[in-house]
Amino acid sequence: MTGTTLDDYTDRYARRVRGMTVSEIRALFAVASRPEVVSLAGGAPYIAALPLDAVGEMLGRLGSEHGTTTLQYGIGQGTLELRERICEVMALSGIDAACGASPEDVVVTVGGQQALDLVARLFLDPGDVVLAEGPTYVGALGVFQAAQAQVVHVPMDEDGLIPEALEVAIADQARTGRRVKFLYTIPTFQNPTGVTMTEERRQRVLDICERAGLLVVEDDPYGQLSFESEAPAPLRARRRDGVFYLSTFSKTFAPGLRVGWILAPHAVRDKLVIASEAQILCPSAYAQAAVTTYLRTMPWREQLKVYREVYRERRDAMLTALEDLMPTGTSWTTPGGGLFVWATLPDGLDAKAMMPRAIAARVAYVPGTGFYADGTGNGHMRLNFSFPPPERIREGVRRLASVMEQDIAMRRVFGAVGGPGSRRSGAGSDAPGPDLA
Amino acid sequence: MTGTTLDDYTDRYARRVRGMTVSEIRALFAVASRPEVVSLAGGAPYIAALPLDAVGEMLGRLGSEHGTTTLQYGIGQGTLELRERICEVMALSGIDAACGASPEDVVVTVGGQQALDLVARLFLDPGDVVLAEGPTYVGALGVFQAAQAQVVHVPMDEDGLIPEALEVAIADQARTGRRVKFLYTIPTFQNPTGVTMTEERRQRVLDICERAGLLVVEDDPYGQLSFESEAPAPLRARRRDGVFYLSTFSKTFAPGLRVGWILAPHAVRDKLVIASEAQILCPSAYAQAAVTTYLRTMPWREQLKVYREVYRERRDAMLTALEDLMPTGTSWTTPGGGLFVWATLPDGLDAKAMMPRAIAARVAYVPGTGFYADGTGNGHMRLNFSFPPPERIREGVRRLASVMEQDIAMRRVFGAVGGPGSRRSGAGSDAPGPDLA
Repeated sequence: MTGTTLDDYTDRYARRVRGMTVSEIRALFAVASRPEVVSLAGGAPYIAALPLDAVGEMLGRLGSEHGTTTLQYGIGQGTLELRERICEVMALSGIDAACGASPEDVVVTVGGQQALDLVARLFLDPGDVVLAEGPTYVGALGVFQAAQAQVVHVPMDEDGLIPEALEVAIADQARTGRRVKFLYTIPTFQNPTGVTMTEERRQRVLDICERAGLLVVEDDPYGQLSFESEAPAPLRARRRDGVFYLSTFSKTFAPGLRVGWILAPHAVRDKLVIASEAQILCPSAYAQAAVTTYLRTMPWREQLKVYREVYRERRDAMLTALEDLMPTGTSWTTPGGGLFVWATLPDGLDAKAMMPRAIAARVAYVPGTGFYADGTGNGHMRLNFSFPPPERIREGVRRLASVMEQDIAMRRVFGAVGGPGSRRSGAGSDAPGPDLA
Repeated sequence: MTGTTLDDYTDRYARRVRGMTVSEIRALFAVASRPEVVSLAGGAPYIAALPLDAVGEMLGRLGSEHGTTTLQYGIGQGTLELRERICEVMALSGIDAACGASPEDVVVTVGGQQALDLVARLFLDPGDVVLAEGPTYVGALGVFQAAQAQVVHVPMDEDGLIPEALEVAIADQARTGRRVKFLYTIPTFQNPTGVTMTEERRQRVLDICERAGLLVVEDDPYGQLSFESEAPAPLRARRRDGVFYLSTFSKTFAPGLRVGWILAPHAVRDKLVIASEAQILCPSAYAQAAVTTYLRTMPWREQLKVYREVYRERRDAMLTALEDLMPTGTSWTTPGGGLFVWATLPDGLDAKAMMPRAIAARVAYVPGTGFYADGTGNGHMRLNFSFPPPERIREGVRRLASVMEQDIAMRRVFGAVGGPGSRRSGAGSDAPGPDLA
């Protein structure tokens, strides 16, 4: 699985790491995909926590007993039965019939990624502006870039997106006369930071968007993976108009089936279905039946608890290791759920430039530059704790800390380049290792 | 299954049937999805011809024994093992290593539809022109429309696309100064006509496109479903440069898994992978493992023969029924493989206007208008023979013939509206039934 996770990293993130070509990164990670490397780079759930015997038995019956339906074409929107089950799942987060959630307005997608792409396809024209947290999900940047839209990042802090900064961004765009189409936000256990927007800010962000006439695209793959108290209710649970709610079974069940969904405003539901049909004709009938049967016959709420416990233990292992081992001047977020910690390096270190040395030291991560549309972020890294077991997490952090200590020592000997903040400009970074020309 | 097939029809084709709203068509087909209706409307394979017990057992093991891989994320291009198996499948059609086919240049997609959409996304800008057979696959029209491209139909006859007409179309477009990006063609057992382009025309079409600097997008979902002699080799087997080859396991194995592929020119392979990642992140690891294991462990060549035999018998049933029962003046194609017959109605009949009466008579088909970008084609209908058993096919044709006879009689009593050819203008058709306002 380490191999897959790193391949995954290579193919998906590499193109966003400025200054290296895809083939350079591929060469680098060909070395790194060996099992002795601890990968903190992926975003993969810990599938071994599923009851695989029971899941396999269920999957087999879907073929042998229901094959004439499950192996056949389906309809573009997805089956009604799955859409009803999806409404049960959303109700657990507070998005229920009382706030207008209905199977009628659910569109089943090929994972959360297609959900995002469909919304982009429907709304974005070349040159449009999308507001998004800075940093944000790398796959969203890929979608917006493919749509030739421009991403304007809105700063966030430990309480999530900063409402005042959102107002400033909206006003700035209004002055330039560019069309802002929507705010893209991951309010809960955000990727890559693990940060959660507070209750109070959720209301303010919704109010600001409503006043500005901005749609909100709420991406919520992690909301049900809370470690302590339940997460604040999604934005969609607070407002039905103008909010697209996107989620997926990739983190709460299994990403290999590629089943996600959009809860859309009723008026655009048909348009989304048409756009999806043009892309993929229909989502997999088999994968839909698998998720439906899983939700109908297996203890999915209990499985959520299992995932939460596994990930909480691993998050704790990571936070403890960071506390014990990281050099002075390093800081990090304390996620209340989800899969990721976001670390900020001591001043002068460059996460992108450090990558080849980290991989030589048998540890991998994603440099912060992957999560910004403008190539900034090289003073940060995203660390995944969902996939590696606790002792591997600690070992990975130990290796990472060692590489960082070496970098710091080298800078002491050879002198620092640039002052505070210069690392974020993308210039003045440590020279990359010889592997990267 | 009849229900699914008709739902399928409703959602996917209805929007292309001019002059009715989606909700009107939905209402109409809500009546038609009852099991007593014979549907000749779908394009579904006969999944019951698969060894479902063995397939189910295989699917189960993929979950229980290999779940940590198959239920996990995969990589954007698709697994190397599946891409190698795909090359074996293509070799059966003559696309082999000697003509440059390599797993390196295969991109696994969510069915043939995503393959088509990716090519469109890569090449089409708003206002571009795509040349395509007239009639052509309804899903391709949806893709090109979503890309805001304009489809210019090139006429075909019983030997496929007419090379002289292709030359005229290219010259016409050159005069208007519009950019023609590619020729989209289904050369073998075409959807909707069932017609196959002859050997000689294949060479000429390739030569014409090469001279004009036109890419060729070859869609080949049906090529391995030949009933008598093997089909002529695909265009891609004859020329490696400038040909995108698209296919799918939807007709040769099962559409419910949504696994298709593109064999792309090497230079654009990476661009296709990036575009696919932006759309869906990665194809389903589980579905890929299912197809890989099917191809590795089960007798897939024998299964192809089973499908061919089932469909040949059904094609024969349809041709015999048409011969025995259709009113004078009706003509139809004689497909050598695939799933469809294309029927041309006696002069003055309108397949679109006749639909409500046909459904009242408990038979469904797709009016020809669905397969033309310009709304013509109402003198034709597409008839599917892969899904209904032979006796149902005959019964369906009997019901259809009876509706047509009634239409002809009504026209005799009330007088024909318009002269020959007027039915193709979309005007002067019989009045729709009361259901359709």
